[in-house]
Amino acid sequence: MVKIGILGVGTVGASVVKILEQNADIIEARAGQKIVVTSGVVKNLAKERGLDIKLSDNPLDIVDDPEIDIVVELMGGVEEPYMLVKRALKNGKAVVTANKALLAYHRYELQELAGDIPLMYEASTAGGIPIIGALRNGLSANHIESIQGIMNGTCNYMLTKMINEGAQYDAILKEAQTLGYAEADPTFDVGGFDASHKLLILASIAFGIDAKPEDILIEGIQNINQTDVAFAKDFGYAIKLLGIAKKVHNKTYGEGVELRVHATMIPQESMIAKVDGVMNAVAVVGDRVGETLYYGAGAGGDATASAVISDIIDIVRGNQGPMLGYKKGLEFGLKLLPKEEICSHYYLRMSVDDKKGVLATVTQLFSEHDISIEAMMQNPDNDHDERVELLFITHECQEKMIQEAIQALERLEVIYGSVAMIRIEQ
Amino acid sequence: MVKIGILGVGTVGASVVKILEQNADIIEARAGQKIVVTSGVVKNLAKERGLDIKLSDNPLDIVDDPEIDIVVELMGGVEEPYMLVKRALKNGKAVVTANKALLAYHRYELQELAGDIPLMYEASTAGGIPIIGALRNGLSANHIESIQGIMNGTCNYMLTKMINEGAQYDAILKEAQTLGYAEADPTFDVGGFDASHKLLILASIAFGIDAKPEDILIEGIQNINQTDVAFAKDFGYAIKLLGIAKKVHNKTYGEGVELRVHATMIPQESMIAKVDGVMNAVAVVGDRVGETLYYGAGAGGDATASAVISDIIDIVRGNQGPMLGYKKGLEFGLKLLPKEEICSHYYLRMSVDDKKGVLATVTQLFSEHDISIEAMMQNPDNDHDERVELLFITHECQEKMIQEAIQALERLEVIYGSVAMIRIEQ
Repeated sequence: MVKIGILGVGTVGASVVKILEQNADIIEARAGQKIVVTSGVVKNLAKERGLDIKLSDNPLDIVDDPEIDIVVELMGGVEEPYMLVKRALKNGKAVVTANKALLAYHRYELQELAGDIPLMYEASTAGGIPIIGALRNGLSANHIESIQGIMNGTCNYMLTKMINEGAQYDAILKEAQTLGYAEADPTFDVGGFDASHKLLILASIAFGIDAKPEDILIEGIQNINQTDVAFAKDFGYAIKLLGIAKKVHNKTYGEGVELRVHATMIPQESMIAKVDGVMNAVAVVGDRVGETLYYGAGAGGDATASAVISDIIDIVRGNQGPMLGYKKGLEFGLKLLPKEEICSHYYLRMSVDDKKGVLATVTQLFSEHDISIEAMMQNPDNDHDERVELLFITHECQEKMIQEAIQALERLEVIYGSVAMIRIEQ
Repeated sequence: MVKIGILGVGTVGASVVKILEQNADIIEARAGQKIVVTSGVVKNLAKERGLDIKLSDNPLDIVDDPEIDIVVELMGGVEEPYMLVKRALKNGKAVVTANKALLAYHRYELQELAGDIPLMYEASTAGGIPIIGALRNGLSANHIESIQGIMNGTCNYMLTKMINEGAQYDAILKEAQTLGYAEADPTFDVGGFDASHKLLILASIAFGIDAKPEDILIEGIQNINQTDVAFAKDFGYAIKLLGIAKKVHNKTYGEGVELRVHATMIPQESMIAKVDGVMNAVAVVGDRVGETLYYGAGAGGDATASAVISDIIDIVRGNQGPMLGYKKGLEFGLKLLPKEEICSHYYLRMSVDDKKGVLATVTQLFSEHDISIEAMMQNPDNDHDERVELLFITHECQEKMIQEAIQALERLEVIYGSVAMIRIEQ
């Protein structure tokens, strides 16, 4: 019998206990052994949980318990779980974690420390979708060319509603909060931070890149409005919050990887554009296999627990890692490109005085910044009679150039407020 | 260094050799060891292949070679590869096969024989999509509820053209043959047999069901015409050739599994309905994870070789099986339901005399067979002025009933030719 201890018995932890009981028949057949959660650690011992396991409020009761074979870490946070996972590994215990923040910051130290002890984390990224396994094992013959992931259900739910039902950002955020899809402080989701943790994990497996959230471009969906949605539709795009990892050839740095999270216009006919509501999906292009896509529930107790238990079963079967996909160091040296080197097409929206010469001023400014325009539209500004909205799509240009142009535009007297920008992936 | 011998160096085999050379950097980093194809077996030694490996026309030169670590079987056929794979396993060699027919007939004998020797087959089903790994590892915590797979690119290409461009079946088959998507004798693809082999493999992992192609319902797309396509569109359906495995509760047999391959009307908004052209996809519903979907190239030398090499890397890493997903026998006993017990909604099309009382005769016959009608349409028969086409959708009923009703309908004097039928999945 394999004995599991869970650090942090919340929604996912309770699902792990329940599924291991209720699906015990199939899980034992697949794993070859009985797997049982014997103990859990919680903050509040007084709360009734209806679970038939030993509970403690001291993590060391699990981490140091010689009876425990596998420690499942579901606490959240970074430094406390880091300390505990290290200690569990030093105690020779296999670890399964769903903690994306822990991995976004400490995955390489943990890989080093784990050595041959299994440390699995399928549940950390895109919930129930077995994307870690797909990248680490299924696509291992490929040089990965790109990853595009819808990895935050809150954002995808909100954008879907904004696109399909014309909902306003504020109203739909409130609805998402009522439905429990968004937190009271939604910044971690709508600001792209949650997705960035997951992207960093995938980028390690795909490209062997060691980066932290601070190193990469992270933007959210807070500035998107119905003008953008209408424009996107007219031009055949969907708008999604994507985590993007892409191998590119850069003039200065050579072959490198762009890592970025932001709202993105993508062609409606691409498979990932068709992923609606709270669902997640990750599209991976390999140099040999071409495009593949993985779709499913990115959150929820049972879906996440499904991934946690699949890791437990793999450990019991004797299958595992290598944790980040590499048995040996990568010698060919892909590096993370600086944010300002990112290349993209850009959509820009700005509110300007409705008078002669303004468009000329704006286009002159683009020209001075070496930005060439692919398409332009002029809309009435519904809030101000004396203004119009100018919408532009640029040809491919560098992030550095567009940021400088936006700053210069915002200094113009004929432009009101800030210039909104959405990147476009073709 | 890990030495590979390939039985059958055709398109896929040549891709395996080439990718192991060209992606040697990343493959060695991921596997931890150099992997090299040293020898191959071909039928025609005279043909120039431009590959830097030792070639022979005697399979035993690989299967019995003590230098070879892993035998890759890419011959096709059933009995010869079966004999050779058995011999390789007896010689203690790990085996990777892409041979769906071999597995459709002999997977359980091979599992028995392999024991702890790795026998991997990711490439056998849906080409480059890592669906075997997803089912065997990623979803292992779940009782699988259903699988729906687009696993034949030829059929999906043809149906996509018929739906999106109004192409006629015969014209599009010819085009598919010209493009190399369909064989001179297309029956294996368009008749559903290719998909049935893949479905049987997936059903073993999902449900532990030992069945052969002869045991299950297999139909193709040969009878679909533009009337069906137009009707499907009007009612919000796409038409796909699906391999379906579904756990159901049957009145007579209790809990059992339906296995079937046939053209299927499915709601346009489902993810799998959105998979167009030669691409493949498999949707899997688990009781805990909900719906997941896996999408990618189902054929082609490089995509298939990508899957073959991922198996090789897994073997080198020490990860593998259990071959069919179970370390122990399944005790709860799911069984294959007889074909006639299948339950579905049905679409029926028939050409009848355009005269009074005919509709009454037909609906009376449905009533006598306990089939209840959900929707009906009457179309002009474009080929015959004096006839009309009647189109029906039934409520859910048993396969046995619909087959008896079709036979009875075809005996009616007012009905011309045969009655066309397409099953509907909601």
